Amino acid sequence: MPYFDAASSAPLHPVARQALQASLDEGWADPARLYREGRRAALLLDAAREAAAEAVGCRPDELVFTPSGTNAVHSGMSGALAARRRVGAHVVVSAVEHSSVLHAAEAHAAATESTVTEVPVDRYGASAPDAYGRALREDTALACLQSANHEVGTEQPVAAVAEICRSRGVPLLVDAAQSLGWGKVGGAWSLLAASAHKWGGPAGVGLLAVRKGVRFAPQGPADERESGRVPGFQNIPAVVAAVASLRAVRAEAADEAVRLRALVDRIRARVPELVPDVEVVGDPEHRLPHLVTFSCLYVDGEALLHELDRADFSVSSGSSCTSSTLTPSHVLRAMGVLSEGNVRISLPLGTAEAEVDRFLEVLPGVVSGARERLGAPVPVSAPDETSGSGGPGPSGGSAPSLVVDALGRRCPIPVIELAKVFGEVPVGGTVSVLSDDEAARLDIPAWCEMRGQEYLGEQPADHGVAYVVRRVS
Amino acid sequence: MPYFDAASSAPLHPVARQALQASLDEGWADPARLYREGRRAALLLDAAREAAAEAVGCRPDELVFTPSGTNAVHSGMSGALAARRRVGAHVVVSAVEHSSVLHAAEAHAAATESTVTEVPVDRYGASAPDAYGRALREDTALACLQSANHEVGTEQPVAAVAEICRSRGVPLLVDAAQSLGWGKVGGAWSLLAASAHKWGGPAGVGLLAVRKGVRFAPQGPADERESGRVPGFQNIPAVVAAVASLRAVRAEAADEAVRLRALVDRIRARVPELVPDVEVVGDPEHRLPHLVTFSCLYVDGEALLHELDRADFSVSSGSSCTSSTLTPSHVLRAMGVLSEGNVRISLPLGTAEAEVDRFLEVLPGVVSGARERLGAPVPVSAPDETSGSGGPGPSGGSAPSLVVDALGRRCPIPVIELAKVFGEVPVGGTVSVLSDDEAARLDIPAWCEMRGQEYLGEQPADHGVAYVVRRVS
Repeated sequence: MPYFDAASSAPLHPVARQALQASLDEGWADPARLYREGRRAALLLDAAREAAAEAVGCRPDELVFTPSGTNAVHSGMSGALAARRRVGAHVVVSAVEHSSVLHAAEAHAAATESTVTEVPVDRYGASAPDAYGRALREDTALACLQSANHEVGTEQPVAAVAEICRSRGVPLLVDAAQSLGWGKVGGAWSLLAASAHKWGGPAGVGLLAVRKGVRFAPQGPADERESGRVPGFQNIPAVVAAVASLRAVRAEAADEAVRLRALVDRIRARVPELVPDVEVVGDPEHRLPHLVTFSCLYVDGEALLHELDRADFSVSSGSSCTSSTLTPSHVLRAMGVLSEGNVRISLPLGTAEAEVDRFLEVLPGVVSGARERLGAPVPVSAPDETSGSGGPGPSGGSAPSLVVDALGRRCPIPVIELAKVFGEVPVGGTVSVLSDDEAARLDIPAWCEMRGQEYLGEQPADHGVAYVVRRVS
Repeated sequence: MPYFDAASSAPLHPVARQALQASLDEGWADPARLYREGRRAALLLDAAREAAAEAVGCRPDELVFTPSGTNAVHSGMSGALAARRRVGAHVVVSAVEHSSVLHAAEAHAAATESTVTEVPVDRYGASAPDAYGRALREDTALACLQSANHEVGTEQPVAAVAEICRSRGVPLLVDAAQSLGWGKVGGAWSLLAASAHKWGGPAGVGLLAVRKGVRFAPQGPADERESGRVPGFQNIPAVVAAVASLRAVRAEAADEAVRLRALVDRIRARVPELVPDVEVVGDPEHRLPHLVTFSCLYVDGEALLHELDRADFSVSSGSSCTSSTLTPSHVLRAMGVLSEGNVRISLPLGTAEAEVDRFLEVLPGVVSGARERLGAPVPVSAPDETSGSGGPGPSGGSAPSLVVDALGRRCPIPVIELAKVFGEVPVGGTVSVLSDDEAARLDIPAWCEMRGQEYLGEQPADHGVAYVVRRVS
């Protein structure tokens, strides 16, 4: 039963389980109390804080435990923003941050009537340091950048951005949720947030580090616990388990990184060979060792997830069809890459080579089966060949245009309809796809990029939007 | 090693441990995911929500899990207050609410420039329903009342207050942290908050119920989990353990309530017989079964805690000496009872009768030892007799007055100094105690009450405050 979605939540590490069970007996009392049960709990908490600080690369008194990674991000942002209220309220984030960062930035902007600047990313999903520099303003209160992207695995240039922020006097909060198990985050960051269940620790534990000298004003009702930064009774057994597993994971990290990187490289290389019309996304080099994402034309992510689940593989998808918001992943959108048929593979520690090989065996049939059910164009031979009709299509006439009505149809139907008729217009002609599906805005240009056709842009229509493509070959 | 501080945190119930271990394997994945690990996690979460709702007495879709009881209170109050912003921002609380409620009310008042009305309590710590009624205003957005007090165990008239709030159209939030393990909270409350580690569940789990029809606007950054009310990855193994232990504790509750109530009655009766100059506080009838609090003249709570810990008893105290704020418990202050030498006993389920008997054996020596070290007045014979000099003191002169300088001395020294000299003034004379210790404001009037002497009030002094007592017998 291969579980390939460690980036959502990693299975509990055996060390986490042992530490949790051991500390249930020692860590249930209130560490603020003076009696022996309280002192024992406080000792466990102190030791966990020291070990966590060492793993993060900060001082123990700079680190607090939160009830989740999301809470660490929210508390870190609100505390840093409140402390710099007099400077301003402007926030800078990358366009591909985790939703916890983006939603906190939005909530802050709404409450303060300020704005959020989203720094764009390249086609690999990386932000450029100089783009961060340009986004910083006199009234910028906080910049945020993830250490590595959670959907495509691309590493961000944290150290370079931190240096720019430092020189401009702006604190940088790093969301290290996806990378902390693999190693420390280098550079002069100001705040760092992470989440234990991403590295094999239990749920219910996040970390927030606020470096000395960084101004910080905790928000919300007062509470003495965790240096006044995190209200509520501490969950010491879970904290102990989280930190013990972080140390255990770090001890395996160097070897596992090499091994999983090779398995991911195999997926990156083989999937486009085995499956036609696939785009592997994210940086091939500067990336998390265990994560790879690809998108498949003419198929919806939900169908792929369902079929892969039937074949015993648990994976994730950033396709719109699998989310309740009906919009494709903001990460894929910011990268400008195909979102339909999106599959994210994130291998847990210890993933066997044979599981990856079996995935590669299963995937082609899963994709072709899903495409068949949707009546998608069948590639004639090589995956790289343009789908649609075999010939160059009817010629003559001066650049005729064709309109495809895909209104009311959800991803991937608009792209399938485009591909089906594309052979019917001559080179130089255009196809306009009428669609009211948000994914089309991303996927039709991505189709053009993959097919070497020209995307002319979108035009308002009576209903939905017309996406116009010119046939160039 | 008797642990008598269940009201701070109860030892983990065996059922909680079993359920936690079992669900670590089934409940670690993201319940929002469609694959089998996610579906298993979602099933566990759904079942836990149904069982919790049944135990609370609400519908499953009215109940969410939070990372702590404190978080449940904070989220419940902020969501209810935000939803009634147009009505007003006034908050009504009892004067003896848990600090999580009081701090949230203060933070709200500061942010909205509104006020908080604290409903006073009687000498037992209970709020009167009609006092709640008088405190409600046209612009009252929310009223809060605990089901039972966490420091003295007194039950509050929740059903009557809920009825008054209902008739006035004001939602009532009930902090049920101390009582939910003992049974449902009756009455037409609007919101209810609780904390699992108070009933023997694991840390990291709170409950928030918001009844249908109660307006609620979650605050903070958006997050889809838990009906949009609680951001962050759910801690399903802990939730399962929390709910399993709530059911287990409820199954034992009726029998244990009878048994522990008898043990507490024994403490209530025997402590004043065994230890001179003791005041047992809280309602003797309408109270939690397992909790009793008393205060001992002429001794500091920290010394008692330390000596009881050396004798293997873990108890809590609301004395100022044990808190970092240097002020006595706001609960004891609101009740107007003695705070010095305060000891709270809260018996966990299963407490053996022999442990309570041994506590009663140990306590008198612990108190007298602590008093001796402080040079406290020694009672001559019966505990009820006035301490101080044996005789009526020098007579003659017209109401002479005596000043005791206790500036810079902390609780219980000002009261000890008062008692030492009290015999030196004649009946009709006064003693003024100069003190800059916050506890004196509570403890000197309490001493007068216990001794049958007349407290004349306080007067400003060059340094500190003069507390004036007239000798009447």
